[in-house]
Amino acid sequence: MADHPLSVNFARLKSDIETLSSIGRSSGMGICRTAFSDADMQARDWLQQRIEDAGLEFFMDGAANLHGRLNWSTDVPAIMTGSHIDTVPGAGHLDGALGVMCGLEALRVLKERGEDYRFPLEVVAFSDEEGTFSGMFGSQALSGDISPEWIHSARSADGLSLIDAMQRHGLDAMQALDAARPPESIHAFVELHIEQGPVLDSRQTPIGVVEGICGLQRWEITMLGTANHAGTTPMDMREDAFLGLAEFAGEIERVLEEHGGQSSVATIGRAELSPGAANVVPGEASFTLEFRDISEQTLLQLADAFHLTLSTIARRRRLMFEFKVVSDISPVACDEAIQNLITTTADGLGLQHISLPSGAAHDTQKIAAIARAGMIFVPSKAGRSHSAAEWTSWNDIEAGANVLLNTLYKLMLEERER
Amino acid sequence: MADHPLSVNFARLKSDIETLSSIGRSSGMGICRTAFSDADMQARDWLQQRIEDAGLEFFMDGAANLHGRLNWSTDVPAIMTGSHIDTVPGAGHLDGALGVMCGLEALRVLKERGEDYRFPLEVVAFSDEEGTFSGMFGSQALSGDISPEWIHSARSADGLSLIDAMQRHGLDAMQALDAARPPESIHAFVELHIEQGPVLDSRQTPIGVVEGICGLQRWEITMLGTANHAGTTPMDMREDAFLGLAEFAGEIERVLEEHGGQSSVATIGRAELSPGAANVVPGEASFTLEFRDISEQTLLQLADAFHLTLSTIARRRRLMFEFKVVSDISPVACDEAIQNLITTTADGLGLQHISLPSGAAHDTQKIAAIARAGMIFVPSKAGRSHSAAEWTSWNDIEAGANVLLNTLYKLMLEERER
Repeated sequence: MADHPLSVNFARLKSDIETLSSIGRSSGMGICRTAFSDADMQARDWLQQRIEDAGLEFFMDGAANLHGRLNWSTDVPAIMTGSHIDTVPGAGHLDGALGVMCGLEALRVLKERGEDYRFPLEVVAFSDEEGTFSGMFGSQALSGDISPEWIHSARSADGLSLIDAMQRHGLDAMQALDAARPPESIHAFVELHIEQGPVLDSRQTPIGVVEGICGLQRWEITMLGTANHAGTTPMDMREDAFLGLAEFAGEIERVLEEHGGQSSVATIGRAELSPGAANVVPGEASFTLEFRDISEQTLLQLADAFHLTLSTIARRRRLMFEFKVVSDISPVACDEAIQNLITTTADGLGLQHISLPSGAAHDTQKIAAIARAGMIFVPSKAGRSHSAAEWTSWNDIEAGANVLLNTLYKLMLEERER
Repeated sequence: MADHPLSVNFARLKSDIETLSSIGRSSGMGICRTAFSDADMQARDWLQQRIEDAGLEFFMDGAANLHGRLNWSTDVPAIMTGSHIDTVPGAGHLDGALGVMCGLEALRVLKERGEDYRFPLEVVAFSDEEGTFSGMFGSQALSGDISPEWIHSARSADGLSLIDAMQRHGLDAMQALDAARPPESIHAFVELHIEQGPVLDSRQTPIGVVEGICGLQRWEITMLGTANHAGTTPMDMREDAFLGLAEFAGEIERVLEEHGGQSSVATIGRAELSPGAANVVPGEASFTLEFRDISEQTLLQLADAFHLTLSTIARRRRLMFEFKVVSDISPVACDEAIQNLITTTADGLGLQHISLPSGAAHDTQKIAAIARAGMIFVPSKAGRSHSAAEWTSWNDIEAGANVLLNTLYKLMLEERER
């Protein structure tokens, strides 16, 4: 075991991040490497080359997840790291890419040390984490959470099927059914990612130890009143659907305070009024409500409280309401031992850290279904993400890369010493 | 003078209303007689024929307003009644048409009495009251409130110019500049109209004596915050533009109570959130605010109070806001003597009545600029209007027609006895 913490080759890592960021970039419009686009395929070819250049074993599974492997064996559970290199349209250069590049760099450093590792280590770039076609294809497939029907129905917003998109590049989407890894084949999974939120940046803290990934419920709600002439209908004879929505929105903060946890959030992100004319009292207000928390119990309490609040407001305002739950995703806890290991590692490197939940979804939440898993966050400047304005200082990137490297190294020792 | 109130020939009136309602009607889709459409022209031809059938003098002025005239003279100021026969798309059968048909019936009854009237009486069907091209073309032109630029720029939502629309039927829109009537040519104007609101219907009162026509201000407002990830942005770090709008909407009732009059109304009829995704905190909320009152002073007080409320909410929530006043229409008072005459007439007919403002716009507000003017309302079932569901009982129509007839008759006596 190394007496001092290991260090990444920062110049090499930085060069890799910059090179990858040039693939799919349009001037002033950010990066577009949506899954199985030409840019994504170009980035995949480049990544394969970088894996092979490093003397690592390259492997592509049935879901087109790309693996770089060190000291591979199927007899011993592997330590896995990774993230994704596909992006949303107009993306920044770090969402996903950071975790893959730092994972690859960790494998290179560990390979260069030349120790006689008795266990496998792999870095994975998961396919379509951003859900261009649906869900998180690559990590779902690897965790066995996929079916033929799912593959057949996966389709992009502009109507391209996953099957056709992969076919164009000689890939068979149905092979994803063979990508599932047995749980006993993974000893631990650790993902490094930008926070995509403002907490670490506002606290000037370089390292976040992720406690878990928030679950969420997303509702589509319609308040139903009566559309009337805005000039001729006295205030006390109205059944104004928008005022019902507005009153509900005003209760969100109270509901979170009374029934939520420390990290609960709730958002009305979309609202549409009908008929939607300046001179007509709204007869319908359709809107989304999304709320997230790290605890399943808290999510259920919030759901009850929001439902009660909607009912009360609708009754008092002579409105009706309809709602349907369009998403219901359970929270995923990160493994406590891995959280402790990340914390100890950050301490050993003299890096400030805090624990926090992830409000965004990540491949980790799929892999956590079959393996103990953990996540390391680095700051996102002003919380910006899914935007060309996404940015993390190189100092913070180096800090995060070293925490990942040393966490993986300790996990490998942990395994060897068992 | 008649000892007993005069009565309309209800069978004839009902037949006329029913015949006119068949022009431009589509099964299940209401009536579409938008100004200068083929259906409108067909209705105009029919109306001209009905005027001539009644032995009245037919006249079309430069704005294509149709006049039916009894005992016409340019030396004596006329008593004028009327409304419009154009409609919105999908209209009911009474909005506008009722006032024209009851006015025509009043002239017929007065002509049939064969008294030696020493003053002129005319019923007018004003062009494009519904503003298919812009404003209220016919009554604006008759009151002299029109310019060459106005005529040139008047255009329908689908891009047809007023000039082209009239040209198709051999009409020259520029002639509208010659339609202006000198104020001294009109002794009084009285319009009968459906209320288009629920007040008379809910109070089971057949006659409304209109105090005036509400003015209004219409604002387009944008609340500006910061769009952020709905999962990763803690509640206390958000600048949620929609929550600013919702809080403002919640203050509307307070502002009306503190600064409004008895009949003040305010409405947010349109709202759009940007970017408008369920998982993004809204960075922008654009919406309309429209408020109406019968008093100019009250409108100004409401404008100040709404502005202050917007500022306060924006400051507390770290939002910016922009707004522009897109409409600012002054209230118009109805002539008190005419209100009293309508009241006395309704009493004489044994009809319940109340005084109320008109929240909707009418030709009366344009004519009031050059002549003393009054309005009579009859109930609208459940306040429905601009809809195929618009409906008024035949009893109420007959009552309204008789109030109009006897009011006009008394105005003629008033003139004669001066």
